Amino acid sequence: MKLVDLTLTDFVQTLGSDAPAPGGGSASALASAQGIALTEMVMNLSIGKKKYAEYEEELKEIHAKAADLKEKLLEAIDKDTEAFNDVSAVFSMPKTTDEEKAARKEAMSKALQGAAKTPLATMELTVAALEATKRAIGKSNTNAASDLGVAALNLNSGLQGSYLNVLINLPGIKDETFVKDTRQEAEAYLEKGKALAEEIYNEIESGLK
Amino acid sequence: MKLVDLTLTDFVQTLGSDAPAPGGGSASALASAQGIALTEMVMNLSIGKKKYAEYEEELKEIHAKAADLKEKLLEAIDKDTEAFNDVSAVFSMPKTTDEEKAARKEAMSKALQGAAKTPLATMELTVAALEATKRAIGKSNTNAASDLGVAALNLNSGLQGSYLNVLINLPGIKDETFVKDTRQEAEAYLEKGKALAEEIYNEIESGLK
Repeated sequence: MKLVDLTLTDFVQTLGSDAPAPGGGSASALASAQGIALTEMVMNLSIGKKKYAEYEEELKEIHAKAADLKEKLLEAIDKDTEAFNDVSAVFSMPKTTDEEKAARKEAMSKALQGAAKTPLATMELTVAALEATKRAIGKSNTNAASDLGVAALNLNSGLQGSYLNVLINLPGIKDETFVKDTRQEAEAYLEKGKALAEEIYNEIESGLK
Repeated sequence: MKLVDLTLTDFVQTLGSDAPAPGGGSASALASAQGIALTEMVMNLSIGKKKYAEYEEELKEIHAKAADLKEKLLEAIDKDTEAFNDVSAVFSMPKTTDEEKAARKEAMSKALQGAAKTPLATMELTVAALEATKRAIGKSNTNAASDLGVAALNLNSGLQGSYLNVLINLPGIKDETFVKDTRQEAEAYLEKGKALAEEIYNEIESGLK
């Protein structure tokens, strides 16, 4: 059964259980998915309203972008747990002969690369989601301002949480170029996304205070 | 149907739809619920392990606290949308006669107080969840360190998101003492919780780098 087909109650209970997956990777993808869904909602509450008519075209563009990113981030919830399960599967590989040991090590390094690349992809989607959300500020329904702020908070949580999930998978990977490149890419997304999230949140908070 | 009985997909789709609820308040409660669920998971992956035997009693205490807070935060997901619906219901009250207008104004102020108190209660639960998570640092399974970091990120998102949802409901409330007290209480939770979340995240991130 897919995680996205669980009820909220069952997903949260499974998260809290003694099963190591789903864990922080899937939780971070859900944070990003609900973040961009809130941006989509605010677009739905703004498009067609007289007050925001001058931004109509841009609001529709943001809406389409948000809807697309939401679908991809929903998929990322299961992808992260699948990548984790691939790593777990390697633990049950035989390790008696030298050949078995070598095959196991190779499989582990490959599985960990997958487990690092999955949250890295979530980071990329989340930065795009933050860019879309930032465009909506000042052009959308002010009654739903807090919702755009909550969007930014969830996207930031998804971004930083995915970053931690990239980091935790790097130490077991033998390919040094992969490790270096992945770390650099993750840090670039982190820096860009955090700055966007902060700008959005501060603008919203100061408007509500 | 309760929100917590929706699948992740249906909840995120409903969040993104043109319905004004569920919105950022319920999303923030879910963020906090999945945050403390991760802390509970890390306790489950630490209790009974030789390496953490000296902390066994404390880990069990944190586990019990996390499990309890998780249930309450799951309930908060629906409570927030119910409080919002109470506000929406007032909009359909008649406002022809002076008596009707007065009754409507009174009902609106009362409904908004409910809509502010609900995210305030989520903030209180979330600060308790951050305190429990902080206690777990350095005493629990290091293989799941990133999960405690993701717990802190989600709790912080739930805390700040709930704060925005307190703020957005205050302007329509006539009772000045209520407004002042609620704002002060929310700011105190915000300050305390943000500091805890930052401490946890920084400790985890520096351990993984």
